[in-house]
Amino acid sequence: MSGKPQFDDNAVISSAMEIFWRHGYAASSIDQLTTAMGLSRSSMYKRFRDKDGLFQEVLSTYAERVLKRMNAVQASTKRQQLEALFHEFLPREGKTARPPGCMLVRSCTEMADLPPASQAVAREGVLGQRAILSKILRDAVASGELAPSSDVAGLSWHFLGVLQAMMNLPQAGATSGELRRVVELAMLAWPSAPAAAAPQRSGKRRSSSARPGEVRMPRRAGRNEDRS
Amino acid sequence: MSGKPQFDDNAVISSAMEIFWRHGYAASSIDQLTTAMGLSRSSMYKRFRDKDGLFQEVLSTYAERVLKRMNAVQASTKRQQLEALFHEFLPREGKTARPPGCMLVRSCTEMADLPPASQAVAREGVLGQRAILSKILRDAVASGELAPSSDVAGLSWHFLGVLQAMMNLPQAGATSGELRRVVELAMLAWPSAPAAAAPQRSGKRRSSSARPGEVRMPRRAGRNEDRS
Repeated sequence: MSGKPQFDDNAVISSAMEIFWRHGYAASSIDQLTTAMGLSRSSMYKRFRDKDGLFQEVLSTYAERVLKRMNAVQASTKRQQLEALFHEFLPREGKTARPPGCMLVRSCTEMADLPPASQAVAREGVLGQRAILSKILRDAVASGELAPSSDVAGLSWHFLGVLQAMMNLPQAGATSGELRRVVELAMLAWPSAPAAAAPQRSGKRRSSSARPGEVRMPRRAGRNEDRS
Repeated sequence: MSGKPQFDDNAVISSAMEIFWRHGYAASSIDQLTTAMGLSRSSMYKRFRDKDGLFQEVLSTYAERVLKRMNAVQASTKRQQLEALFHEFLPREGKTARPPGCMLVRSCTEMADLPPASQAVAREGVLGQRAILSKILRDAVASGELAPSSDVAGLSWHFLGVLQAMMNLPQAGATSGELRRVVELAMLAWPSAPAAAAPQRSGKRRSSSARPGEVRMPRRAGRNEDRS
């Protein structure tokens, strides 16, 4: 027989995900993990090196799935795409098979307890979410749905915060209907459509009464793109 | 000598808070806790019954401090008070003595791992935060700063989500300046001031082009107050 592991890698990672998702990194014991995975300790250490190595693979698999789900959302306008993305992550009442909340939000709360390589995976996952939000906003600017002066960097942090809050507030008692309303309110930060005939001219001073998503934007020479 | 504990209760709770705040409920060990508190296991069990009992006292003390800090914020308008409240909780760069993040946000992420009585304390703390946000909004309605039709219930969830996100995004790399911008964007959901001469008449239909914080509000007969 070859030295190839005698188990289904995907199934093992999904089983470990269930434990880490429910209990976080620090509170998940090697015993719980190996029992869930159906692996001996030695097989586990051989394949994943240690708990940190296992967590890195689990969290990057989790992040990949979340980002894929975020990227799969389609709509006819970018504004509708963003709203649909939020709706995709509303809690589904009655559907309780998955652990509550989000592993990425949870990893942020226990960032200081994660080993450095796991911290990097957690940050990369969250910044991957932000990059998707930034891209929706940049695409909206490119298509003229948003003004070139729209604050993509600020808006993408704002919408990332909304997404994180949506994943966490159900544990404090918020219902799906209440979170749908939170999405409506958060979307008020989406800048109003650019005026039909208002070409941007360099050197022209902006008035202080900018539209919503543009207010008090830091003015860097001709650069309005996301810095992330 | 009396049966009174021979230690400073406040100091002991603050020491345990430091551990729970950094590591969460499930990952904090009795050893870590008793070492931090400078108590023997038996003194700890005698005073707090068990880890659950200790956590309840620690988290309710924490929540009390946070709610007091939220309530202490003053400003000349309710809108400014809410903004100032958010600014009060911006991360202070360079000041690293406190553990990162918020114990209430963290307790939401590990809600399923908390014993029932600790879950109740966590929910009570978060709903206490929401009640303060609701009160600011209701006071704004009472003083005429907001229209009576303002959606206090929806807005208070939205602003609670903003507060939670502000406490968690620094662990993903958001700076204080970026969060200040998030506050500006989130505040766009604050409804615009009621028109000077637009008394509400019962029986009068609202147009579908309601002001920001009023859009698509569920219409219950004459009740717009917070249900929390």
